[in-house]
Amino acid sequence: MGIVVQKYGGSSLADADAIKRVARRIVEVKKSGHDVVVAVSAMGDTTDDLLDLAAAVTPLPPARELDMLQSAGERISMALVAMAISDLGYTARSFTGSQAGVITDAQHGKAKIIDVTPGRVTQAIGEGHIVIVAGFQGVSQDTKEITTLGRGGSDTTAVALAAALEADVCEIYTDVDGVFTADPRIVPSARKLDRVSYEEMLELAACGAKILHLRCVEYGRRYGIPIHVRSSFSQLEGTWVVSDTGLQGPEETTMEQPIIAGVAHDRSEAKITVVGVPDKVGEAARIFEALADAQINLDMIVQNVSAAATSLTDISFTLPRTDGQVAMTALARIQAEVGYDKLLYDDKIGKVSLIGAGMRSHPGITSKFFAALASAGVNIGMISTSEIRISVVVDENAVDDAVRATHTAFDLDADEVEAVVYGGTGR
Amino acid sequence: MGIVVQKYGGSSLADADAIKRVARRIVEVKKSGHDVVVAVSAMGDTTDDLLDLAAAVTPLPPARELDMLQSAGERISMALVAMAISDLGYTARSFTGSQAGVITDAQHGKAKIIDVTPGRVTQAIGEGHIVIVAGFQGVSQDTKEITTLGRGGSDTTAVALAAALEADVCEIYTDVDGVFTADPRIVPSARKLDRVSYEEMLELAACGAKILHLRCVEYGRRYGIPIHVRSSFSQLEGTWVVSDTGLQGPEETTMEQPIIAGVAHDRSEAKITVVGVPDKVGEAARIFEALADAQINLDMIVQNVSAAATSLTDISFTLPRTDGQVAMTALARIQAEVGYDKLLYDDKIGKVSLIGAGMRSHPGITSKFFAALASAGVNIGMISTSEIRISVVVDENAVDDAVRATHTAFDLDADEVEAVVYGGTGR
Repeated sequence: MGIVVQKYGGSSLADADAIKRVARRIVEVKKSGHDVVVAVSAMGDTTDDLLDLAAAVTPLPPARELDMLQSAGERISMALVAMAISDLGYTARSFTGSQAGVITDAQHGKAKIIDVTPGRVTQAIGEGHIVIVAGFQGVSQDTKEITTLGRGGSDTTAVALAAALEADVCEIYTDVDGVFTADPRIVPSARKLDRVSYEEMLELAACGAKILHLRCVEYGRRYGIPIHVRSSFSQLEGTWVVSDTGLQGPEETTMEQPIIAGVAHDRSEAKITVVGVPDKVGEAARIFEALADAQINLDMIVQNVSAAATSLTDISFTLPRTDGQVAMTALARIQAEVGYDKLLYDDKIGKVSLIGAGMRSHPGITSKFFAALASAGVNIGMISTSEIRISVVVDENAVDDAVRATHTAFDLDADEVEAVVYGGTGR
Repeated sequence: MGIVVQKYGGSSLADADAIKRVARRIVEVKKSGHDVVVAVSAMGDTTDDLLDLAAAVTPLPPARELDMLQSAGERISMALVAMAISDLGYTARSFTGSQAGVITDAQHGKAKIIDVTPGRVTQAIGEGHIVIVAGFQGVSQDTKEITTLGRGGSDTTAVALAAALEADVCEIYTDVDGVFTADPRIVPSARKLDRVSYEEMLELAACGAKILHLRCVEYGRRYGIPIHVRSSFSQLEGTWVVSDTGLQGPEETTMEQPIIAGVAHDRSEAKITVVGVPDKVGEAARIFEALADAQINLDMIVQNVSAAATSLTDISFTLPRTDGQVAMTALARIQAEVGYDKLLYDDKIGKVSLIGAGMRSHPGITSKFFAALASAGVNIGMISTSEIRISVVVDENAVDDAVRATHTAFDLDADEVEAVVYGGTGR
């Protein structure tokens, strides 16, 4: 029997009782003959409480110390989970990210995993122990500093460990039953997906579905680790994130793969429009160079064909709202050099995305999507497409209507309500 | 200018405001031209809160995981102190016990420091940083496991760092102004000691004065590190713990060293009497062997001369109350082998000790001590002496009277109240 890697988020570890419940689940898997390695997040609101303390001490905490502070959270939860397992008569060993060999680069607060050298984990498994690893944290390769992986980091820890240990599966436990065709808070009739491809999951994550972090899915895809997203509050099968091939495995041959995986939405972005850019070679490059220098990650980018009469064009793009101020400052600095007319900033937008690997071979998806939006009275601001995704920017207040109309138009509604949110909102 | 090592306890780090006050003190020393290394305890009640969580998960937490859990507390406080320093325009680097090179044996919960290899601390000092180190914790030499040093461990961390860094002084910050001639809660007229020798401080600590931990004083004595015990809530000079020679330095030559350093008391012990032990070679050894095998630390031991008529003797000893049950069980197991009559257990006792290096050369101290106890109506149960200490066991309820009577008899009372307790009771 192989290794099973599990990850439990903060809402699954909210208090002592929750921790004991998680310990029972872990022990069940061990009893079934598997070796078990578990990545844990900090308990409930621990991380937020620590950040509040930091804010009370200084408005500008150094990133290194912020990582040191936050890394205490998982240290607490992992030791408690190990104790709870011991209480059930099994032995467990907890390891910090550093001890577990999670090697990262040195970018505090958003470090990337470079390598996993799980010697101590492997040794503890060999000695018969269940292993608990602090999620979200690692140690930098050269400077040996404690780092954190940023939002959703514990998911990434889990799948990186699964890859390094050649685990059979990486189970991501959360407070919902899996990945749904839309956010159940907006679309109560959303259906749980039994399977979804890495590519679709990547698009869903990138387009606002918060259930799995982008980097976790990228890691799983690169190393071919099946990811099973499920609830720690029920025994239901969740959603398997697997390769396209996996979707068309033996048991799938009689069924066609569904065209559409789901409808995602995102209200965390803002839109900037650079108005009146001289339409000549190098101007757009200069704008995006300035934004890259300011470490801004752009999402959708649209440039309209210039009206020949003016030789001027408008460039619009979306970006995280949190980066809005920095981006506007960076662009204002190059106004004279580029010679554009003015900047427009809009953070009252939302993005709605239709995602499905099946749309590759199905014409007419785009027109059906736009027709659904039109019939719901939703005005489209920007459009962007990939091979398996269509995204539109709409007014922030039109997002819910747009999601519901699209979900219905593509026959995704379930006959009865499937989604249950068990825990709080924390992850 | 040399290195100053400071230690701040939990009551000095109770909340964000307290942490900012500590940061200002640290920066003042740095401004004066010293390099500063600071050992910190966990904030306020953090450690107790963590232990409560552990107790809610299991009644018998594994020691390894308990250490992992508790070590999170200092990680939080040290990062916050570093941030607060940064807020004042200075740079700080926090290090865990492991990162700071605090190498211990593998006894979880009561590990002893074997070595300190402060390479990263020295490097950070060289780069101009203020260094914050997690007190109370280390890493085991062979197994590389996180360990904790037990009660008062942060004091020991501080003085061990001071020794390894060849610091000029180790300042122990607490919530009182220094070491007093008696516990000010019992004797309001207790006087603050300006100086006390390592030997006297060792006896004071061993006899129940909780201001400094025994191992901290032992460490300071072995490496000749001057320890300055003072309050983080005032700017007053505290008590210097130094060598006997230091007490009789140039500025002291005109004054005779005081005979008595203080009166200590301890209500944490119990007394066991083994009644009717056959008075022959090897019997006592068998009893103490059994107690040693059970890892019991004994304090006072008294054996009465046997009455010739019976050839039986009684052996009494004191030990921590928390070890009472284990000791009684270990002794019951060897009753047939040793052939003693019965065991008596008494945990309603207290120990009162008179301590002073000056008593070596002053006859009459003992008789004055006993006369004071008699005039206060206190009955003496056991007596034990060293060259600089006399201890008596009395009824638990007579401890306060015994301490006050002794304090007055030796002219230790101050003219006005000197002692102020600033913070809470936590350390």
